[in-house]
Amino acid sequence: MPRKRALVSVYDKEGIVDFAKGLVELGYELVSSSGTAKHLAASGVSVKEVADLTGYPHMLGGRVKTLHPSIIGGILARRHFQEDLNDVETFNIPLIDMVICNLYPFERAWEEGADLENLLENIDIGGVTLIRAAAKNYHQVVCVVDKADYNRILKEINDEGNVTLKTRGELALKAFSYTSWYDTAIYRGLMSQIAAIDEELPEMIPLSLRRDISLRYGENPHQKAGLYTIPIADKAWIQLSGKPLSYNNILDMDCAFRAISILQQDCACVIIKHTTPCGVAVGETTQQAYKKALACDPVSAFGGIIGFSRKVDLATAKELAEKFVEVVVAPGYEQEAVEYIKEKRENTRLIEWKGQRFMPLQLTGTWSGILVQEDKLPPLPDPNAGEWVGKPRLDLWDDLITAWKSVYLCKSNAIAIVKDLATVGLGSGFTSRVDAVKWAINQAGEKALGAVLASDAFFPFPDSVEYAKEAGIAVIIQPGGSVNDHKVKEAAMKAGISMFLSGWRTFRH
Amino acid sequence: MPRKRALVSVYDKEGIVDFAKGLVELGYELVSSSGTAKHLAASGVSVKEVADLTGYPHMLGGRVKTLHPSIIGGILARRHFQEDLNDVETFNIPLIDMVICNLYPFERAWEEGADLENLLENIDIGGVTLIRAAAKNYHQVVCVVDKADYNRILKEINDEGNVTLKTRGELALKAFSYTSWYDTAIYRGLMSQIAAIDEELPEMIPLSLRRDISLRYGENPHQKAGLYTIPIADKAWIQLSGKPLSYNNILDMDCAFRAISILQQDCACVIIKHTTPCGVAVGETTQQAYKKALACDPVSAFGGIIGFSRKVDLATAKELAEKFVEVVVAPGYEQEAVEYIKEKRENTRLIEWKGQRFMPLQLTGTWSGILVQEDKLPPLPDPNAGEWVGKPRLDLWDDLITAWKSVYLCKSNAIAIVKDLATVGLGSGFTSRVDAVKWAINQAGEKALGAVLASDAFFPFPDSVEYAKEAGIAVIIQPGGSVNDHKVKEAAMKAGISMFLSGWRTFRH
Repeated sequence: MPRKRALVSVYDKEGIVDFAKGLVELGYELVSSSGTAKHLAASGVSVKEVADLTGYPHMLGGRVKTLHPSIIGGILARRHFQEDLNDVETFNIPLIDMVICNLYPFERAWEEGADLENLLENIDIGGVTLIRAAAKNYHQVVCVVDKADYNRILKEINDEGNVTLKTRGELALKAFSYTSWYDTAIYRGLMSQIAAIDEELPEMIPLSLRRDISLRYGENPHQKAGLYTIPIADKAWIQLSGKPLSYNNILDMDCAFRAISILQQDCACVIIKHTTPCGVAVGETTQQAYKKALACDPVSAFGGIIGFSRKVDLATAKELAEKFVEVVVAPGYEQEAVEYIKEKRENTRLIEWKGQRFMPLQLTGTWSGILVQEDKLPPLPDPNAGEWVGKPRLDLWDDLITAWKSVYLCKSNAIAIVKDLATVGLGSGFTSRVDAVKWAINQAGEKALGAVLASDAFFPFPDSVEYAKEAGIAVIIQPGGSVNDHKVKEAAMKAGISMFLSGWRTFRH
Repeated sequence: MPRKRALVSVYDKEGIVDFAKGLVELGYELVSSSGTAKHLAASGVSVKEVADLTGYPHMLGGRVKTLHPSIIGGILARRHFQEDLNDVETFNIPLIDMVICNLYPFERAWEEGADLENLLENIDIGGVTLIRAAAKNYHQVVCVVDKADYNRILKEINDEGNVTLKTRGELALKAFSYTSWYDTAIYRGLMSQIAAIDEELPEMIPLSLRRDISLRYGENPHQKAGLYTIPIADKAWIQLSGKPLSYNNILDMDCAFRAISILQQDCACVIIKHTTPCGVAVGETTQQAYKKALACDPVSAFGGIIGFSRKVDLATAKELAEKFVEVVVAPGYEQEAVEYIKEKRENTRLIEWKGQRFMPLQLTGTWSGILVQEDKLPPLPDPNAGEWVGKPRLDLWDDLITAWKSVYLCKSNAIAIVKDLATVGLGSGFTSRVDAVKWAINQAGEKALGAVLASDAFFPFPDSVEYAKEAGIAVIIQPGGSVNDHKVKEAAMKAGISMFLSGWRTFRH
């Protein structure tokens, strides 16, 4: 009679032979299902077959081999309950003290493009049951799901052949996070195949997280942080060069992805500081777009995140290397551009955006719970669909759309003033709208003359229009929707400013 | 021989009798484990016991009753594989076409304060295996985990006794989201008991979400949205009156919780617009604190979120009811205060904060993944621990700490000017620090004279100090850490402004 018995059933066999040998040396008897048993036996490790313990035949292609009451009972039996021990005796149940198990590689199968039938075959039923049973009974059973724990366990096993209760508790927690992750992967993998369901705000959203990048720190140096992903998620970008990304880089990059996405029809550049733009421009080339965006607020641009909607060429790279830039984000780079920046500015992070995102929903953690919302634009303004106050200014429509897109990228309350397809004044993150107007106008200075102004939400009072008039703004685009809309329209008429009401607000916080 | 066979094993028995009767009428044979079998039989539904099919005895207190190869095999057998069908024949396996199962109420046990032993007893092993097996084989088996689906399924069953493949696929997805949720609950429940592990950035974070509140819309009317929670989460607040909360209310409330939490030593008030304060003040009473906070920027305060760190009394309620207020957040309210606001402003949402939060980590969804960070303050500045430049001004220390807390609550880049324990100038969300300084000074006007100024991060250049001097600022508090610190200190000395360097930055985006 062995001191202890371990059940081994692993798909990923890395490290299992050494672990198994170590356990045998410590007096363990090993029991395995067929594949693992063969693997161990071939390496000279003595092991019993599960079927020997259950007396139950191999059937259904091995789908149910470990799902037998003798096996599960041997894991779940409560060693401190006499009734359980009586049953163990009566029904000749082999007590199992350790379960070593990892699961069919569902996620890898998905990544390798498996078809639905193959995906379904990769859903592990028996393994999950073994793991959950062992973790449930962690007071008496050691549950090992991670090969990284093999050595630690061998070292820790004491004279009674056991590890501490603390370790068993930690292993049980790891086990349940593993099974929760696994079923999240299955949910997401099957969802991608079963087209009938979309991801639009379902009642439940399986979302087990796994750390993808350990970050040096979070928003501030005293906060630990990481970037986490979920299984079956798209990778948004690859890094081509530069220092590792910081928490705040990743936060700021979001505004760049959004900008590239919304400005994909144009050759555009956006410069971002503290998650909001300090310059947006459309140009003939990426270099020109960058220079125009930079001109909006060169002081703020220092150490910014620069986004481009087109491949970055060498001329632009030379321009970029003149200044300290934290991150560049673009859908691509000419090889010489990458080489040039690597040489001149080895710290600058070059990010190639793959045109996709982690998941389509926007998640924001709050102290109340996690806010989930669709992350999408309202309809693009259409000069023939909204309401014109005063003379329609189709001659300035391109500026108006650029202003609309720019103000959408800004933190609310936001105002963007645009001239010649470039922002010349940006007020964002203000707690009152009229203050955002004042700030943007002040920043634009004389460039406000003949420029267009966009607001991300309605004007609550006509005062903003009056300031715009003083500054010489030619056209305003705003969603409308205030109880004071009639007063605002009246002020625009009086000021001789054309105004387009698009109907849709674009707050971003 | 029945046309179809359903396995029923439910902890929550609501609706099961009608569903079971409906299935029998449609030609189903029912198989149940003991508890469910008794319940159905008592209601006159004819049902077989699992033990009759497996021939395996009841043991280990019923812990392993359904975990038998005949049962799992009957679910998993591939009806389109001749080998499987041969095994079914040879081993006399009863094919199972539908699994109806819900799980031991782990979460409810936790909510009811179950001890660890009881929690462990409430971890369902057999049920999860049945559900996962049925969902894996959804092409041939119907998996029912939600009583809300009972009627829909009865209506949909066709002449072959089946529902559509589309429905079975949807039910399978629901099944995996249920098991992922369940193991997330177990992970979180056990973690709260196994003290050895804390929640500080583990490698994996099980986080299945369930919708708690359906919101009218998200940040903007064209975006669907909801507030989601995870199992075993603390409820942060209760709503005492007013309209349902909006997405933006919940976002703004976060700043109020943070303010109450950081200002808990004081009788304080914060007024929030667009997730950032437009007024913070400490007073003798909540009413006085409110009036002082309001004075900072009365224009922005319209339609704001108001937070109090003390119980709100009737006098304050009367003051609040004078204006349009979206939400009030406080640790409590005098009964008359609630009644007064309910009567005068029935739309105003009164939120009682329970002093806790959903989870300790801060989660921010990005296009790159989910950023996770510790959500905590750096050490509070200590006049004896940091660095003083110029004469230490302990006489203004209370103002300095209030400014430090105010600027922490603001979006970066942020500057707060405080006089007599109230903000008189706030610049937040700026893309350059000197602009935040200019704005805050401009807002403070003459009140800047003799006031203190706090910055959430270092000054990159001395220009901010020079603006502060012009405005008459007496003391500055800032973390320091710039390569230009020596120039900034020099400028402060030259300007006769005392400056305290705390050492810790407090960005908030």
